[in-house]
Amino acid sequence: MARYDFASDNTAPAAPEAIEAVVAANQGFAAGYGADAVTARAAELVRGLLDADAEVRFVASGTAANAIALAALCQPFEAVLAHRHAHVTTDETGAPGFFGHGLGVMPLDGASGRIDGAALAGALAFEDSAHAQSPAVLSLTNATEYGAVYSTDALGALIAPAKARGLAIHLDGARLFNAAAAGFDVKAIAGLGVDILVIGGAKSGMPPTEALVTFDRGLARRLDARLKQSGQLPSKGRFYAAPFVGMLQDGAALRHAAHANAMARRLAGLTPYPLTHPVEANAVFVEMDEPARLRLLEAGWLAYRFLDGSVRFMCSWATSAEAVDALGAALKAIR
Amino acid sequence: MARYDFASDNTAPAAPEAIEAVVAANQGFAAGYGADAVTARAAELVRGLLDADAEVRFVASGTAANAIALAALCQPFEAVLAHRHAHVTTDETGAPGFFGHGLGVMPLDGASGRIDGAALAGALAFEDSAHAQSPAVLSLTNATEYGAVYSTDALGALIAPAKARGLAIHLDGARLFNAAAAGFDVKAIAGLGVDILVIGGAKSGMPPTEALVTFDRGLARRLDARLKQSGQLPSKGRFYAAPFVGMLQDGAALRHAAHANAMARRLAGLTPYPLTHPVEANAVFVEMDEPARLRLLEAGWLAYRFLDGSVRFMCSWATSAEAVDALGAALKAIR
Amino acid sequence: MARYDFASDNTAPAAPEAIEAVVAANQGFAAGYGADAVTARAAELVRGLLDADAEVRFVASGTAANAIALAALCQPFEAVLAHRHAHVTTDETGAPGFFGHGLGVMPLDGASGRIDGAALAGALAFEDSAHAQSPAVLSLTNATEYGAVYSTDALGALIAPAKARGLAIHLDGARLFNAAAAGFDVKAIAGLGVDILVIGGAKSGMPPTEALVTFDRGLARRLDARLKQSGQLPSKGRFYAAPFVGMLQDGAALRHAAHANAMARRLAGLTPYPLTHPVEANAVFVEMDEPARLRLLEAGWLAYRFLDGSVRFMCSWATSAEAVDALGAALKAIR
Amino acid sequence: MARYDFASDNTAPAAPEAIEAVVAANQGFAAGYGADAVTARAAELVRGLLDADAEVRFVASGTAANAIALAALCQPFEAVLAHRHAHVTTDETGAPGFFGHGLGVMPLDGASGRIDGAALAGALAFEDSAHAQSPAVLSLTNATEYGAVYSTDALGALIAPAKARGLAIHLDGARLFNAAAAGFDVKAIAGLGVDILVIGGAKSGMPPTEALVTFDRGLARRLDARLKQSGQLPSKGRFYAAPFVGMLQDGAALRHAAHANAMARRLAGLTPYPLTHPVEANAVFVEMDEPARLRLLEAGWLAYRFLDGSVRFMCSWATSAEAVDALGAALKAIR
Repeated sequence: MARYDFASDNTAPAAPEAIEAVVAANQGFAAGYGADAVTARAAELVRGLLDADAEVRFVASGTAANAIALAALCQPFEAVLAHRHAHVTTDETGAPGFFGHGLGVMPLDGASGRIDGAALAGALAFEDSAHAQSPAVLSLTNATEYGAVYSTDALGALIAPAKARGLAIHLDGARLFNAAAAGFDVKAIAGLGVDILVIGGAKSGMPPTEALVTFDRGLARRLDARLKQSGQLPSKGRFYAAPFVGMLQDGAALRHAAHANAMARRLAGLTPYPLTHPVEANAVFVEMDEPARLRLLEAGWLAYRFLDGSVRFMCSWATSAEAVDALGAALKAIR
Repeated sequence: MARYDFASDNTAPAAPEAIEAVVAANQGFAAGYGADAVTARAAELVRGLLDADAEVRFVASGTAANAIALAALCQPFEAVLAHRHAHVTTDETGAPGFFGHGLGVMPLDGASGRIDGAALAGALAFEDSAHAQSPAVLSLTNATEYGAVYSTDALGALIAPAKARGLAIHLDGARLFNAAAAGFDVKAIAGLGVDILVIGGAKSGMPPTEALVTFDRGLARRLDARLKQSGQLPSKGRFYAAPFVGMLQDGAALRHAAHANAMARRLAGLTPYPLTHPVEANAVFVEMDEPARLRLLEAGWLAYRFLDGSVRFMCSWATSAEAVDALGAALKAIR
Repeated sequence: MARYDFASDNTAPAAPEAIEAVVAANQGFAAGYGADAVTARAAELVRGLLDADAEVRFVASGTAANAIALAALCQPFEAVLAHRHAHVTTDETGAPGFFGHGLGVMPLDGASGRIDGAALAGALAFEDSAHAQSPAVLSLTNATEYGAVYSTDALGALIAPAKARGLAIHLDGARLFNAAAAGFDVKAIAGLGVDILVIGGAKSGMPPTEALVTFDRGLARRLDARLKQSGQLPSKGRFYAAPFVGMLQDGAALRHAAHANAMARRLAGLTPYPLTHPVEANAVFVEMDEPARLRLLEAGWLAYRFLDGSVRFMCSWATSAEAVDALGAALKAIR
Repeated sequence: MARYDFASDNTAPAAPEAIEAVVAANQGFAAGYGADAVTARAAELVRGLLDADAEVRFVASGTAANAIALAALCQPFEAVLAHRHAHVTTDETGAPGFFGHGLGVMPLDGASGRIDGAALAGALAFEDSAHAQSPAVLSLTNATEYGAVYSTDALGALIAPAKARGLAIHLDGARLFNAAAAGFDVKAIAGLGVDILVIGGAKSGMPPTEALVTFDRGLARRLDARLKQSGQLPSKGRFYAAPFVGMLQDGAALRHAAHANAMARRLAGLTPYPLTHPVEANAVFVEMDEPARLRLLEAGWLAYRFLDGSVRFMCSWATSAEAVDALGAALKAIR
């Protein structure tokens, strides 16, 4: 049995703060469909985290949350601009098109998962046509799939021209806490002009839950009906809200993310395989051929090859320094 | 603050067996997307419960599970036959049409949520037409929305003519354990010809989780891709599987359902308001005018008026005899 | 071989004015996708007919035109209010749900296809809920499926409360010219607050074509892309525009509709079977049992039984007085 | 006013044989929705052309016909393999995803619009994954967007491995007659294993109409309902069938296509701009910079720049040798 420690950041168990909040919330009867006190508290904590007014919902799936956000911002005959290797582009089995009734995804290039400014400018120079899906949304991810982090300014530099061209902005924050721990200012998100943000719970050490944050209240019209129809309005809402309470009320989310980032840096310092991306969040990508990856697997460690050809190691709140050192040793041994 | 004890069966907290299983499953790293040992164990327990071979998946939402099942069985230009007041017909904000790309739902009559045999026969006498959505699926619910229970024979008597006419069969088992506790034989489901079954976790005392059971392996082709695209392939699958382990491994699910049913019967014996439906599972429906319902609310008890005009009280694993007696007294007091 | 003269108003051939305009338009090369001069001329004629500014497109299918209009006005998690027997409700194989990604249709009652004011008021008294598709659009049809005609005031009396409640308005004018010939003022449509109107070409004596008229230019944003994606942006647009030129440039459409209406009145005066609906446009509905209908078929005349149980005879521009008299005689003979 | 002669093959008027057949079909009353004699005759002629048994329908839109075909063959969570510049990939505003509820299109490379065998082999080497849309259909186009023609053997060499891998086959024959005139054997299509074929009418000199040909009768189950829901079951079917009668009954379609191909070769011999693709059907693509294209426009000739950067000139049944020579002279003059 191979170890899944570094296979993904969702192979980790949930952090104690999250699970304890779930157990604590599991007391007595409560109103359904998000009308309970735990959900209200969690929403307040998210607004506090972002220092912004917003509609906040807690849903089961990040794939669904992203797809619902894009469907709310983009007509079927329009397109979403996203990084070529963004999760919405490559890793959700076409969920944006399914929830968005055929909406298009137009892939953009850029190093380490960050969209290149020139690539965006090229895409924004489109001429509206009846024969193609014209861009209506810019979808960004921070931290990126490759563990890079947009600074607040870098993100703003992409958002501004997109908004000037009339596009709406979606921010996939599956690893938002890792970005925050790396210096990205989450309190700037609303001001930058993001319309809908998804904050990942699962990848941050919670049991399955994601926060769907809609800054524009107009966009949130009949949002609960939209969520219900999409299978994302949980009847027992407290189970999706409680982990956010547990992880936000005393800063555990950020603390755990900082630990995960630190473990990634530690691993980056140990690997004999060359890094293929800057290690700014909780991911380490290395250049490693397939026989080497299989030797590593034989040595007991599972790691996936990614779209760009490099091999990925993910750290999480649960990654111990001992595990990192053991993996580092294994990497040296199979080299 | 009104008490939600009887407002629904999903206002209850999760049962200890379910929560303890979640906590127990939250140990160490595990493969994602349902490839973990807890999921395998839970699937095995479901197959054992049903005494049948089947593909079993654990998903977050019953609405989604039902809608995905119907979309797998019904083309957009076809229709689902369902009871006029079935959950898929009236209470899912059109989710079957959303997941099924516009598939139709054709409502059938029948007392207490059970489809009337003659109504079904009438619908099955359709002539295929290009101008209407012809029936392709029969959707049944056991126990019904009105707390009635189909016997195995009664269910079979509806399924047989539908299958003879070429329809597929969907069984919504949001309250399957309540039906089982009332005598319905869940081991007969596969043999009756049900194609896809959804077993409710949330209404049975679990945190959010539902089992999607596909008896025909052909139907399950690329099922995980279907679920992923629909936002119902959880990365941390163990959290949706563990409650089923906790509730099935020693029969807690059935035991709790039997308790809920007993509480409903106890309440039925206490209410001064006339029953509008037979009390066979965990629901009590009474004839009560709106001023009375509001007096009850003022007295501290929330209850919803249902589609047929009667007022509903739901019992669950967490309903205590004391609460039933207190509600009974309140009902008498406001009468 | 039975005669199809009265089976529908689309069993008739196209009127000479329409066909001649097609032949005339078939000269030389022309820009595609509606950028040609014939299309511009036809759009101008439609705006003149309605005495209103509007985006006008010519498409192949009335079913698609209605469904696209509803999809533009209604989110998937919302519903369209329409008469129980309206074409969009019963006769388009669920096209509104297909184009509208699962949007709901909520049927309303009313005599002879006209929505009853009280029924509408009841539907407009809805409380927004996350669990049901709340109304977002009122869809009206003039003339109705049963050959009744809304007066301008009667239509306004339905539109006003719907708009006051925030609903958008769709008008299915598959038989708009028949309504106009019966006194309905088409120049009032824009002022009444209709958002999107579909003017039927096929049922008015044209080869397949329908005019999609969007009064609100904002709604028309990226309309051509929407139409292209939906398969309703014809490359050879002149073929769908030319019939409108031929039928509108000298009033042929109205003239033919007046004739069709007159033929219906003539038939109404001859039938020994009791009328089931007022004969205000080009339809005659009678009470006739099935053996009688089959005797009529045997005598050489095809007529369809409708949803309300009565049998329908449709007149068109091509219906001759002789044919009406012959049908009248046949009806007497089989009586 | 620029001349549109070479802008596209759908800027041409309809050929006399097609229009005359429409006028001839416009006699008397006829059954609707494809149940008329003209439609039956046209379907028979198409089966004769292909020397194969098949369900044949005549619809208004090629975009819709392709999209409906793909939706019939591909689940939303699966993908279509198609050339990177195929019409379904780039020029239908995402119609396949709209009709197919989010199905994916996976672009393949290949010279001149023909899919490269190695590129196909690479795509067919996919491993089924829950996280991506796995291929379910191979979509081919003959003649291609770049005016190249697959030989029967070349097409078979792509179809065979795709079928071996379990994929269904769609053939976009928008310019099938041009391919046939270039030597492609249309009677081989059924035997090669194509599941659904679309034969273009509009680009072949007909008014708007396309033939949707389903070789597998099982796939055609409830096809008319599918078409009706999609807005592609015309009530006045004879108008879409008649052009095929006129163009097939005495071979006009092939004759006209041969003429169009010959005109393209003539133009290819005259252009001073280098050809970018082999001239095998009715298209001529040349390398021409933007100032030159604008000079040509100023000289009175419209031509579009294509996805590969070259400029396209299309010939049709209506292209005269004089027009070709005049364009040739103009090209020399602006050089």
